[in-house]
Amino acid sequence: MRIEIICIGDELLIGQTVNTNASWLGKTFSSIGAQVVKCSNIADDKIEITGALRNVAEGVHAVIITGGLGPTKDDITKHTLCEYFNTELEIHQPTLEKIQAFFAARNRPMLETNNQQAELPKNCIILPNNYGTASGMWFENNGIIFISLPGVPYEMKGIIKEEVLPRFQERFQLNSIYYQTALTQGLGESFLAEKIKDWEEALKVQKLSLAYLPSPGIVKLRITSFKGQRDSLLIDRYLAELNLIIPEYLFGFGDETLPSILGKLLKEKSKTVGTIESCTSGLLASQLTSIPGSSAYFLGSIIAYSNELKVKLVGVHETTLEKNGAVSEQTAMEMAEVGRKKLGVDYCISTTGVAGPDGGSMEKPVGSVWIGISSENGTFAKYYRFGDNRERNILMTVLSAQNLLRITLK
Amino acid sequence: MRIEIICIGDELLIGQTVNTNASWLGKTFSSIGAQVVKCSNIADDKIEITGALRNVAEGVHAVIITGGLGPTKDDITKHTLCEYFNTELEIHQPTLEKIQAFFAARNRPMLETNNQQAELPKNCIILPNNYGTASGMWFENNGIIFISLPGVPYEMKGIIKEEVLPRFQERFQLNSIYYQTALTQGLGESFLAEKIKDWEEALKVQKLSLAYLPSPGIVKLRITSFKGQRDSLLIDRYLAELNLIIPEYLFGFGDETLPSILGKLLKEKSKTVGTIESCTSGLLASQLTSIPGSSAYFLGSIIAYSNELKVKLVGVHETTLEKNGAVSEQTAMEMAEVGRKKLGVDYCISTTGVAGPDGGSMEKPVGSVWIGISSENGTFAKYYRFGDNRERNILMTVLSAQNLLRITLK
Repeated sequence: MRIEIICIGDELLIGQTVNTNASWLGKTFSSIGAQVVKCSNIADDKIEITGALRNVAEGVHAVIITGGLGPTKDDITKHTLCEYFNTELEIHQPTLEKIQAFFAARNRPMLETNNQQAELPKNCIILPNNYGTASGMWFENNGIIFISLPGVPYEMKGIIKEEVLPRFQERFQLNSIYYQTALTQGLGESFLAEKIKDWEEALKVQKLSLAYLPSPGIVKLRITSFKGQRDSLLIDRYLAELNLIIPEYLFGFGDETLPSILGKLLKEKSKTVGTIESCTSGLLASQLTSIPGSSAYFLGSIIAYSNELKVKLVGVHETTLEKNGAVSEQTAMEMAEVGRKKLGVDYCISTTGVAGPDGGSMEKPVGSVWIGISSENGTFAKYYRFGDNRERNILMTVLSAQNLLRITLK
Repeated sequence: MRIEIICIGDELLIGQTVNTNASWLGKTFSSIGAQVVKCSNIADDKIEITGALRNVAEGVHAVIITGGLGPTKDDITKHTLCEYFNTELEIHQPTLEKIQAFFAARNRPMLETNNQQAELPKNCIILPNNYGTASGMWFENNGIIFISLPGVPYEMKGIIKEEVLPRFQERFQLNSIYYQTALTQGLGESFLAEKIKDWEEALKVQKLSLAYLPSPGIVKLRITSFKGQRDSLLIDRYLAELNLIIPEYLFGFGDETLPSILGKLLKEKSKTVGTIESCTSGLLASQLTSIPGSSAYFLGSIIAYSNELKVKLVGVHETTLEKNGAVSEQTAMEMAEVGRKKLGVDYCISTTGVAGPDGGSMEKPVGSVWIGISSENGTFAKYYRFGDNRERNILMTVLSAQNLLRITLK
């Protein structure tokens, strides 16, 4: 199945917005075995939109159009589509009711422009938007599917996942690709490749392909079979083998995340968790509670950014800070240990480090981080050395802390 | 001057790489008054590349082609260009010497593939690359300029700045585009449009164009002039006027963010801040400390997810929780007020709400949030009603809390 993507928006052409929709769509369609053959950014302009629709790449089965569906007047996609597909707008009653319910639930008045969002082309399939007020539209013309979606990423993604992918999978034979993804944390792409070299060779012999999908702090390994489900047991066997090779890095599979895995482990063991954070300043707690129902095991945290609060609020001894500094094994351990009692949790994670760009020294350069964990089985802290980038250092600390707790819980 | 961009690379189509080159080029050309009319991602494939060259948008003066010039075998751009422009490769002596010097300086051996990078088309202008080994190429055909550049961002940017922009500015009479962006929080796109209707009409009379750029919780308003810097004072006047119309929503301009603006305000007033968080669970603190140097005004936080910790750690009265529940004006106010003393800060923000998907009731449905602020001037709390999506509710609370503190500080 061949797909073309057309992204409408002046903000993309003048470079004010980076087009992350394009890469998400590319990833998503690749994962179901469809191929994106072309992707264009064009202006919010009738002539440009019409031109792009007319010049669709050869052999394309579907065209995904994003953007230009908001309620304000600089949006003209809907009218252009009507003209191009020779149809007109009419009130789509189910959409109108949905928009009315959307505003009623938020206790906000509806404006005329919101009403207009229920005016939709007569001859298209309406794709409901459960995250906003601009519906998706599915046209067919000369054997090609044209789908127009809002440009707001979470609205676009919602409609693609709920409405578009199931239809594509049913209509085109897309079930021939089967893949599983293993999730790793703590090793860069090239080091990981070195560690699993022999395993990767064995995969190749079985005609299974392996892709490294790196993102900051996490590398996903995707094994793909072009024989579909028939290879699922074989792939499961290879994943189990991988887990024996890199148990400290492999944290999960598929759609799992570190917070979801920790949630599962903590619930299984009926244990609670809390954090005492310095350099991560709440991002660790925020990650742990990103899972619905996390209040079952997450109780609370103290963010002690200043040394004064480390002493006053957490209960770290002043002498510990004076002797070792805030970024030290001793401080990290004491934060976790004293904090565990203060929060009344079974497991307490502490973070303290130099996130940067300031605050580094010869002895403790930017990127130096200590992570501590305390439980009834004892307390320990581990040293990490990340890079120069503040945002990345905080993120790496948050991911490493979660992986360290995972290993401890196992 | 009209420009089209063609980005070559399978990694862009399968979504493994986000195309940041496109947005950089858009920004850069806009800033000299040229207009990017189209930007496409296409595959590393002879047929696709030739097709894209043949179908350049109407009225385009220059086509920028990035990618597909590296030393590995999957790169075929150079050969395709030779065929398309009816020429052949020959060793370009100055480039060969430059590549040799490049490797000598790095004390690395040269491979055959590096030698091949000095083989360049006969009938083009060579644009030297001072950051790598793949030269840029400038062709002209039927009055259109075609420029092929490497896809590695810093190499591409270097050649654009040093070789391409000066030539464009000399050859085309470039009338520059000038734009300014106002940032708003707390009003959806359509409500905002309604509120500033008259102001927007006045802009149009002055031939200034306005675009709404929405993202979750924030709508950016971009005013563009095609007369360049000459309109800068006029635009400034309109922005000042906008600030009088929506002072509670307009929080900043250009590259500013809520954390950067709060940082500036708190530093100016020499005040400190801390948070007592329930539903946002550390994300608010994490945002406030996303700015380098935030330790100057941010001291710390307590995340009291459980009611027990709201009492034990923060000091909220048990009777307040029993009488009003955790998600209530009274609890939000007490969290902020008692928390302010506990943390020893000048301003304390509290958040308590039903993030969802569970925990909602008829009286307090999912999306109900109270935000409290306490300072020496007093304590208050404000009610917000967001939607059904947990992640979005947390994000909206974090943004609204920051905007509420901004208004309080003003």
